[in-house]
Amino acid sequence: MTPTEEIMNLRLGMDIGGTNIKVGVLDERFQSVTFHIRPVRETDRSESGMMERLVEMIGEVEREVSPRYGILTSVGIGIAGIINLREGIITKSPNFPLWNNMALGVGLRSRIKLPVFIDNDANAATAGEALCGSGRGSDHFICYTLGTGVGGGIYLNHHVWRGVDGMAGELGHMTVEPEGRPCNCGNRGCLEQYASLQGLKRFVAEHAPADLQPDDRDLPKIMAERAAKGDMLCRQAFESFGRYLGIAAAGMLNALNVKKVVLSGGLSNTMPLFLAAMRKEIHSRSFPAVSQGVEILKGGLGDKAGVYGAAVLDVS
Amino acid sequence: MTPTEEIMNLRLGMDIGGTNIKVGVLDERFQSVTFHIRPVRETDRSESGMMERLVEMIGEVEREVSPRYGILTSVGIGIAGIINLREGIITKSPNFPLWNNMALGVGLRSRIKLPVFIDNDANAATAGEALCGSGRGSDHFICYTLGTGVGGGIYLNHHVWRGVDGMAGELGHMTVEPEGRPCNCGNRGCLEQYASLQGLKRFVAEHAPADLQPDDRDLPKIMAERAAKGDMLCRQAFESFGRYLGIAAAGMLNALNVKKVVLSGGLSNTMPLFLAAMRKEIHSRSFPAVSQGVEILKGGLGDKAGVYGAAVLDVS
Repeated sequence: MTPTEEIMNLRLGMDIGGTNIKVGVLDERFQSVTFHIRPVRETDRSESGMMERLVEMIGEVEREVSPRYGILTSVGIGIAGIINLREGIITKSPNFPLWNNMALGVGLRSRIKLPVFIDNDANAATAGEALCGSGRGSDHFICYTLGTGVGGGIYLNHHVWRGVDGMAGELGHMTVEPEGRPCNCGNRGCLEQYASLQGLKRFVAEHAPADLQPDDRDLPKIMAERAAKGDMLCRQAFESFGRYLGIAAAGMLNALNVKKVVLSGGLSNTMPLFLAAMRKEIHSRSFPAVSQGVEILKGGLGDKAGVYGAAVLDVS
Repeated sequence: MTPTEEIMNLRLGMDIGGTNIKVGVLDERFQSVTFHIRPVRETDRSESGMMERLVEMIGEVEREVSPRYGILTSVGIGIAGIINLREGIITKSPNFPLWNNMALGVGLRSRIKLPVFIDNDANAATAGEALCGSGRGSDHFICYTLGTGVGGGIYLNHHVWRGVDGMAGELGHMTVEPEGRPCNCGNRGCLEQYASLQGLKRFVAEHAPADLQPDDRDLPKIMAERAAKGDMLCRQAFESFGRYLGIAAAGMLNALNVKKVVLSGGLSNTMPLFLAAMRKEIHSRSFPAVSQGVEILKGGLGDKAGVYGAAVLDVS
């Protein structure tokens, strides 16, 4: 770094998924300066193993970016599950059962000597879309992360609304069919069972077409291709997806009267297949003054929303 | 007033219903100094007629309270319908069709020379419960007003959340049965069709018992008395009421993670008959960390929530 260059404060974000760990660094203008994706290793599944792994990855990235861009000033981590934000504890992790009640925040902070912020992956994705993605410039929006399940986030007055316990934004577990499909959360008829990979699998299992298997690894891709070519059953599957997402979103829009819905997560790529059905429900189920002017936008950060959102948890 | 007494700023609130107009005045400590209830007269149904009536009522109350308590500093009005808060316009009034698009705020302000605040009756009731009722001391809560229909309000960080158009809090129009009972709003399966007087009427109409008429003026009272005595059909009616209210509340609690639900409106009096069913759904349909510690409280202001809430619209 030459003396004339500005030394910037850099924020590091990590998105810990069941399969991969993503790490990225943002500068003060929320521009990316680096991004990496690494597979989860078997040794990471223990509490101590993951702690070592994170320290190692953060160290690597710091050595990469510090000489060129500035100083790491904070680390944010997004992870699926129930997170105690204030104490930085992973209360319950669906992907890493060995981490339940792990005090990740305190442990990591004592190792890396930097402030550590932890939140669930959907809140992190919402923060990312708010500051660097499709929510940029918006005062308020709601976000659905459409993947294996459905996560959510609520952005009000320039902040992610986290609620009393940091549990707010569980929009995937709104009931959309009181006697509907059983959900992993213990409830029945959650949105998550209709507008997600799980939802597509259930649809296939219920309709049992000869040439589709619910457990096919490429199920969403195959179904999307067939739907695009006019296959009726696959089209109906995405219509059902959009219908239930619209029912849930209409309820949230009537409740919060915000004008933007951001769709993040891998299945947001199938938006052209479900958007019309989603819009139809929003318009028929929310007040005209509420639905008027509502924008439904695909997330602008793709699969990096969680990692960049984790980096900005301290300011969102 | 003797020279040693404090001259207080007083806030006047009005709650304009289809049958009665309520007016009340609060002092600076949000204590009531007067309350009156007056029937709506036929002449009030026109725009000019209501304007004269309001000016007359405000004048009467001012002459009553000013010599004893202090100076009227603002007037707040709560009224059912779609209200344009910023411009003080009644966009749509279900009870007074002649007032649609009436610029009540500007008109009244020019007559009484005081700041005028207008909001819908459910937001006003929420504000009332927040500052003077069961929500007092709470940072956040959600409120359902259970009457002919179901209104709602969302109180976050010490303010009624009004949304982009002032339309937030329409919690009665969350879909709880996608293919359910048709609603006046144009949707199907709204909470309002299950947890309200309309809901009880529909239940009676659908089950058609020989000894109950959906249009009986005292229907809720008769049904509540019978349910309390063990009548199975009437008990089922209130269980259905509580079930759907619980389904809707569970979705809002998962979304907002607040710890208090306030039930206002005339039918909140039947809470003992529906509370168990409501609680059951909240506990089975929201995350344990979300439902843990949630209080469900009857509004503390009874049928005065709307009038006192109207009085405090400027500070909520």
